[in-house]
Amino acid sequence: MISKARLKYIKSLQVKKYRKQEQCFVVEGAKGVQELLRSSFETVIVVGTEDFIHKHEASIIRSRAEVIVSKPDDLAQMGSFQTNDSALAVARMQNNEPPSLGSGEFALLLDDIRDPGNLGSIIRTADWYGLHHVIASSETADLYNPKVIHATMGSFTRVKVYNTDLPEFVSTSGLETYGAFLDGEDVHSAIFGNGGLIVIGNESGGISKSLASMITHRITIPRLGGAESLNASVATAVILDNVVRGRLIH
Amino acid sequence: MISKARLKYIKSLQVKKYRKQEQCFVVEGAKGVQELLRSSFETVIVVGTEDFIHKHEASIIRSRAEVIVSKPDDLAQMGSFQTNDSALAVARMQNNEPPSLGSGEFALLLDDIRDPGNLGSIIRTADWYGLHHVIASSETADLYNPKVIHATMGSFTRVKVYNTDLPEFVSTSGLETYGAFLDGEDVHSAIFGNGGLIVIGNESGGISKSLASMITHRITIPRLGGAESLNASVATAVILDNVVRGRLIH
Repeated sequence: MISKARLKYIKSLQVKKYRKQEQCFVVEGAKGVQELLRSSFETVIVVGTEDFIHKHEASIIRSRAEVIVSKPDDLAQMGSFQTNDSALAVARMQNNEPPSLGSGEFALLLDDIRDPGNLGSIIRTADWYGLHHVIASSETADLYNPKVIHATMGSFTRVKVYNTDLPEFVSTSGLETYGAFLDGEDVHSAIFGNGGLIVIGNESGGISKSLASMITHRITIPRLGGAESLNASVATAVILDNVVRGRLIH
Repeated sequence: MISKARLKYIKSLQVKKYRKQEQCFVVEGAKGVQELLRSSFETVIVVGTEDFIHKHEASIIRSRAEVIVSKPDDLAQMGSFQTNDSALAVARMQNNEPPSLGSGEFALLLDDIRDPGNLGSIIRTADWYGLHHVIASSETADLYNPKVIHATMGSFTRVKVYNTDLPEFVSTSGLETYGAFLDGEDVHSAIFGNGGLIVIGNESGGISKSLASMITHRITIPRLGGAESLNASVATAVILDNVVRGRLIH
């Protein structure tokens, strides 16, 4: 059984103010909790069904987290997703440290991605394509929002998100920058050089003016139909698929 | 001013049962309503701010829709999105007619895409890449759900969605079928022939067994990192980008 105090504490972490104060966040669902236990994040509390805890006993013991056994119905009430019927965890945030990008490495720059689902899906996509770093503007959705964490499907454990001022980051990085515009070079024939920053613009406004002027390679995703734009996470995936294409041996 | 009866009617269309009964659905936001007015869909009611109605007077008159002037605050209350401050419309559903695919044409087959945002984004992506038809299983989210219509960003006016039994559709179509699996041919080197059906699997379960056995071309999106899968709309975009690549003259 979970105590009222613990329940209140876990629920409070749905609010950004309390996450910041406690430096903790919630991971919901079996997949996310399993990935968390395997990761470099500190797991503070694991709440799970008897089944889940039994199945993952070794990794839970190793994590030294507080363990609370719960019924499936209670689990759904604790978190923000009604479909969770196996586990939930509280984890400690990691420091907001600037990434040191390796030679030939690509990273994403998120210019005000406001939708939590988009941010989560972008992190998951970055992880699929082997990227390790995402650099996000302060207007981008909070990584530790439960919707973001959930949409990453565990990829938050492998892709580090660093929040900073993007124009400043670009200018001090000295790296090549790529961004999608309507008048750029066809992404199918563009040459992605030896690493750099790929800028993903805001859902409705695209790439902001201050950043747009700093972009060294303007690219375009070919359009054959009537849609005016693509969803931000969809555009990210298409660009990354074209970036890695040249790097893979078939 | 909008009457109580009209307000109640519009609100009722957020529920599938009433949409089916009335054969009508709601389009929210300026972009969607503009696209609707330009489309082959019948517009039944336009609710808009004075500004919106003045700006789109010609197309609204042509549509012969009932026009209701509204304040921005009232508009947000009418629909399901709190950010709508310009227009909303009621439109008539179109018949669920089987598509007649042209030679060389590709269409998407959606095998239980349950998330409305995913379905909307898939329709938008299909539209971007010039597809005209989506064939969806009965377990796929309802096209006329306000969240789906909104996520299409107007593409529901150009891409027709047909609901049917997928295995039956595939077997009677006699077309080539493509589907993403973990053990398929690399999508970067796969040859997409002269049209066919591209199957997109369910968000958590992938492509169902009954359909999987009917797929003639198993493809795989190359993975370099740790994510186990891609979001369904993201995977759709990567596949379509590779399908059209061979067809474009650079």
